[in-house]
Amino acid sequence: MLSFSCDYNEGAHIKVLEKLMETNLIQVPGYSEDKYCQSAREKIRAACECPEADVFFLVGGTQTNMVVIDSMLAKYEGVVSAVTGHVNGHEAGAIEFTGHKVLAIPQHEGKIRAGELEDYLEAFWADETHSHMVHPGMVYISHPTEYGTLYTKDELASISAVCRRFDIPLYMDGARMGYGLASYRTDVTLPVIAEYCDAFYIGGTKVGALCGEAVVFTKKNAPKCFMTIVKQHGAMLAKGRVLGVQFDALFTDNLYFEISRHAIDMAEKLRKGLEAKGYSFYIDSPTNQQFIVLENEEVEALREHVMFSVWEKPDDEHTVIRLATSWATTEENVDKLLDLMQDRAI
Amino acid sequence: MLSFSCDYNEGAHIKVLEKLMETNLIQVPGYSEDKYCQSAREKIRAACECPEADVFFLVGGTQTNMVVIDSMLAKYEGVVSAVTGHVNGHEAGAIEFTGHKVLAIPQHEGKIRAGELEDYLEAFWADETHSHMVHPGMVYISHPTEYGTLYTKDELASISAVCRRFDIPLYMDGARMGYGLASYRTDVTLPVIAEYCDAFYIGGTKVGALCGEAVVFTKKNAPKCFMTIVKQHGAMLAKGRVLGVQFDALFTDNLYFEISRHAIDMAEKLRKGLEAKGYSFYIDSPTNQQFIVLENEEVEALREHVMFSVWEKPDDEHTVIRLATSWATTEENVDKLLDLMQDRAI
Amino acid sequence: MLSFSCDYNEGAHIKVLEKLMETNLIQVPGYSEDKYCQSAREKIRAACECPEADVFFLVGGTQTNMVVIDSMLAKYEGVVSAVTGHVNGHEAGAIEFTGHKVLAIPQHEGKIRAGELEDYLEAFWADETHSHMVHPGMVYISHPTEYGTLYTKDELASISAVCRRFDIPLYMDGARMGYGLASYRTDVTLPVIAEYCDAFYIGGTKVGALCGEAVVFTKKNAPKCFMTIVKQHGAMLAKGRVLGVQFDALFTDNLYFEISRHAIDMAEKLRKGLEAKGYSFYIDSPTNQQFIVLENEEVEALREHVMFSVWEKPDDEHTVIRLATSWATTEENVDKLLDLMQDRAI
Amino acid sequence: MLSFSCDYNEGAHIKVLEKLMETNLIQVPGYSEDKYCQSAREKIRAACECPEADVFFLVGGTQTNMVVIDSMLAKYEGVVSAVTGHVNGHEAGAIEFTGHKVLAIPQHEGKIRAGELEDYLEAFWADETHSHMVHPGMVYISHPTEYGTLYTKDELASISAVCRRFDIPLYMDGARMGYGLASYRTDVTLPVIAEYCDAFYIGGTKVGALCGEAVVFTKKNAPKCFMTIVKQHGAMLAKGRVLGVQFDALFTDNLYFEISRHAIDMAEKLRKGLEAKGYSFYIDSPTNQQFIVLENEEVEALREHVMFSVWEKPDDEHTVIRLATSWATTEENVDKLLDLMQDRAI
Repeated sequence: MLSFSCDYNEGAHIKVLEKLMETNLIQVPGYSEDKYCQSAREKIRAACECPEADVFFLVGGTQTNMVVIDSMLAKYEGVVSAVTGHVNGHEAGAIEFTGHKVLAIPQHEGKIRAGELEDYLEAFWADETHSHMVHPGMVYISHPTEYGTLYTKDELASISAVCRRFDIPLYMDGARMGYGLASYRTDVTLPVIAEYCDAFYIGGTKVGALCGEAVVFTKKNAPKCFMTIVKQHGAMLAKGRVLGVQFDALFTDNLYFEISRHAIDMAEKLRKGLEAKGYSFYIDSPTNQQFIVLENEEVEALREHVMFSVWEKPDDEHTVIRLATSWATTEENVDKLLDLMQDRAI
Repeated sequence: MLSFSCDYNEGAHIKVLEKLMETNLIQVPGYSEDKYCQSAREKIRAACECPEADVFFLVGGTQTNMVVIDSMLAKYEGVVSAVTGHVNGHEAGAIEFTGHKVLAIPQHEGKIRAGELEDYLEAFWADETHSHMVHPGMVYISHPTEYGTLYTKDELASISAVCRRFDIPLYMDGARMGYGLASYRTDVTLPVIAEYCDAFYIGGTKVGALCGEAVVFTKKNAPKCFMTIVKQHGAMLAKGRVLGVQFDALFTDNLYFEISRHAIDMAEKLRKGLEAKGYSFYIDSPTNQQFIVLENEEVEALREHVMFSVWEKPDDEHTVIRLATSWATTEENVDKLLDLMQDRAI
Repeated sequence: MLSFSCDYNEGAHIKVLEKLMETNLIQVPGYSEDKYCQSAREKIRAACECPEADVFFLVGGTQTNMVVIDSMLAKYEGVVSAVTGHVNGHEAGAIEFTGHKVLAIPQHEGKIRAGELEDYLEAFWADETHSHMVHPGMVYISHPTEYGTLYTKDELASISAVCRRFDIPLYMDGARMGYGLASYRTDVTLPVIAEYCDAFYIGGTKVGALCGEAVVFTKKNAPKCFMTIVKQHGAMLAKGRVLGVQFDALFTDNLYFEISRHAIDMAEKLRKGLEAKGYSFYIDSPTNQQFIVLENEEVEALREHVMFSVWEKPDDEHTVIRLATSWATTEENVDKLLDLMQDRAI
Repeated sequence: MLSFSCDYNEGAHIKVLEKLMETNLIQVPGYSEDKYCQSAREKIRAACECPEADVFFLVGGTQTNMVVIDSMLAKYEGVVSAVTGHVNGHEAGAIEFTGHKVLAIPQHEGKIRAGELEDYLEAFWADETHSHMVHPGMVYISHPTEYGTLYTKDELASISAVCRRFDIPLYMDGARMGYGLASYRTDVTLPVIAEYCDAFYIGGTKVGALCGEAVVFTKKNAPKCFMTIVKQHGAMLAKGRVLGVQFDALFTDNLYFEISRHAIDMAEKLRKGLEAKGYSFYIDSPTNQQFIVLENEEVEALREHVMFSVWEKPDDEHTVIRLATSWATTEENVDKLLDLMQDRAI
């Protein structure tokens, strides 16, 4: 059975595993105070061109969103997100669990628009009853989004400017950041992200690591006693080395970027192959997630040979499915998948 | 520099790493629905002689305590713990973060006593104002305790009987469970634990894994929608395989017990060596943590060569330090440590 | 200055105050265990024709929503509400503060529709990833709604049927319930509400009391240890008598219904007067809140003489304002208001 | 049946009720933005000799503790309290409900000692693992304490100095503050409290009001957006006037202090009468709560005629009961109680 269901069906990139193996018996302190974490922090700061950034390592994506958002918000504040944002729909209420509301605004292919954000914030502060409402205390975006789409540098600049006008931080969920940076259709680099965002995380779990996300605070704005908050949220790893070693490997010799580019190449091959066969796309995604619209019978037929994700049902006859490539996707498997998918009358 | 500061200074046992390597590129579903988790669950059920146990995998100890306790308590209930319980003092308030009070009762070398527990529960329900107080909704014990001590089978039976009388679950924190089971001075086995406890976890992080704890609900009492609660608490690992593979390795061919026994052997060697040199012990620990009382100057001298943990200061002249062995401790290092520690006049 | 800004600009109905005065020095126990609370409970049960209902008294509306919703939801559940529901927008995140998400669905003049609710619930359970999402655990409606509108008996029956199909409770926010019951355009009575809802509250603060809301659980479904939860949420009044005495007075000799009817009569007079003068209504409200659309200059002119609430801005030239009557509104003041509002060209 | 069970068995002082009656139909805005609240604030500032104090009105004691403590703590901080502090034992976990731990330290007749507080704080910061623990973020004291005892001015000064050394606020729970200020054995006045405490509340519920507590922040340190936090915690009263009018009455013509003095006079009469009859006191309380030690049979006999509170059981034969006077206690009832209590052999 082929699997294109997600980008976490395999373990870790071999160089990551080798580094874990190689450093395994060296004794280091716990709680991310080890030399591997320190080295990884330095390499990430360099990659962000942000030498004073504070870098922390957490285990997973929902956890990272929960800890960062809770730690950056005042108690009476909520986080603004696209209605399709991962924090709004697919984190089992982890943000609300910490006491904060997700303030949903409209989405456009998974993205928010600076103008709509500004309208929302202006309307909030103009409302005479706003002291009875949850204050918008930060803005959450994902890049790539839940639909595989990317912000342009100009879009990020505009959203960032709105945030600064209203004096609230901009936070980027980079669970799949590598696949965004490696896209052929983007002008957004890590330093650009570091410039426009006040905090973000570089996803490891979906981009070559067994687990792990690197949180970056770019403006000397790491929340006070952040590691205590991490512990309080059950998010501290005793063997912090496990995260440090992995990110150290990923940020050595461009590994993070190279393996991300491989996933993009596989996605491009898949996209072109499917286009040639007459398939239509739900969204034009420049990253590793591809969304195609199938007739329901096609979905059932495909299910026998391939694992994929059912995304949504635009109408009673059709289904949108997601096919995801990753650093581990082989060209052979892409070919097999294309062979399985029949030519459609165009 | 030698380190005896804790039992998580190294990575994972080589067989654990090899299994991660060996299974690395096999595609499996996320969120612990993979075959390795399934296999590990079966092996743990067998080891517990509890074929109907529900087994879940989480990442770390504080996280596990937070998720299990929060999910088993009603909203108005708290968890009873020894005042020295890890949940009461060293988890940065993770239990309170979930809205629940830790109800501290006296400790005796880290353990609670069935009689004192019963008195506490009787007094609570006899108090006419108890509806204004946090209800004791479960009991937390650690085994080994924070002082390395162990409950006897009889003690567990008595505590369990009190819990059943008051109809509240007994939960055991087994962060170092392997070192308890492998002690030469215990009659408590995994099946005994499964009989007397309603829930417990088998610690992986401190006993040979990179990370990971296996939660066991023994009485068909797993909280409803437990995995959704896990996600809500930021505790779900996308690549659940990482946990499943490790526990599968640890519970193959008795590995978990053998490597635990090694740590105990190293601790015994250390204990006997120190006794012979005239050192006195703060507590008589039958497990991998050894607590010795030093004069303050001795502490400073030792610090130059060895990493250890400062535990407490019984008076102005003395300090209790903890020396911990683990599955990874070498006999060579124990010898080096003993050489470093001078003979004392007895 | 006239005030029509809300229905809580005055104190309490004189009969409520007199009863407080009359019982003032009689010694009774605290925490709502007094005879006045007991008497009020009986009268409310009778008015609901629900002799086995559990009745509790809380202080305010947001507090009541927070306590009831938190106590009825499992930890991983959220509450479904119209996007315009008070709990979603105007309670400063009190629901999220308790760890639960408000799951917003579309509104139609402040109401939800049974069909849309059913679609939402079906889609949730059909989603293969629903264990990663907040489970819909109860349904919140307000009656009258935030727009003064009312559900019909048939609408309530349909919504209730959907809730029962999915085995989740239906909860009604009755902050202004009296004004709904007293409307000339409703077939919904208290017994109807008690039949279709699993929990609701009868608002006192806005209908003749100084403060106080009466929570009714109709199906022997009061949450276990509810008063302990009330205390935990800071919602328990030491002098519970204050609430009991007031509700006892309000439910004696039909007072609650009579004073509500007065407010409706005043609203009708106001509505007809404004219609005659050519004003247009934003919504056709059958209760005590009337929403009219004014040109912005009209708003500014009116502000000099009358206090009212600005509701929303449908476009750049117009503003919707709310005029609220209450049990305390005098006919004289309605006449004055009508005199102040100029005839418009029709 | 006589009642000395607590100081909230009656309604409100007649002057408070009269003021509610007199102002009842005057239209004012909601949410404590009315002129009565404003007037009460001014009078409280004057009584505190703290012209720049921020004053807010909340409904009850547990609620006030919950809101003030949650709003003043950082997320990773807890509140230090005597183990017998109301927040630690009798608020159903309201503090933990907001995510914060109560850090219990020893008590001496209900009071904490500056020296022990300092030792605790020093030990916390000296502990190398303190980043894994809940940080002590404020200090809670009650005055009078749960045992009716009072801090001296010197004791307050010392505790305040320790708090300032560690840069954490000192918060006083004044549920019964009036009875403390009116004691014949105190040098602590309201201005003294305002000088040494960073926040406190003046209890209304137990001292002449139907409900209501006045929170005072003395150092321009009111938490940002405090009223939004109040709303979020379900603690905002729509008819804020109810609180403002009552405190305005209580702080007019010294009423608060005069009615408190009456309670003290009744307590003194009771105390002297009981001493003369040979009763022994559990604690020497200079305020309105008197604690006497009875034989268990005496308790049962007394129960037939008098309501009182059972406090604790020092041994199997004896019981400590509490007799509380209040602003409403009549001399006649004190005489009746004394008549009921038999002379004991001295």
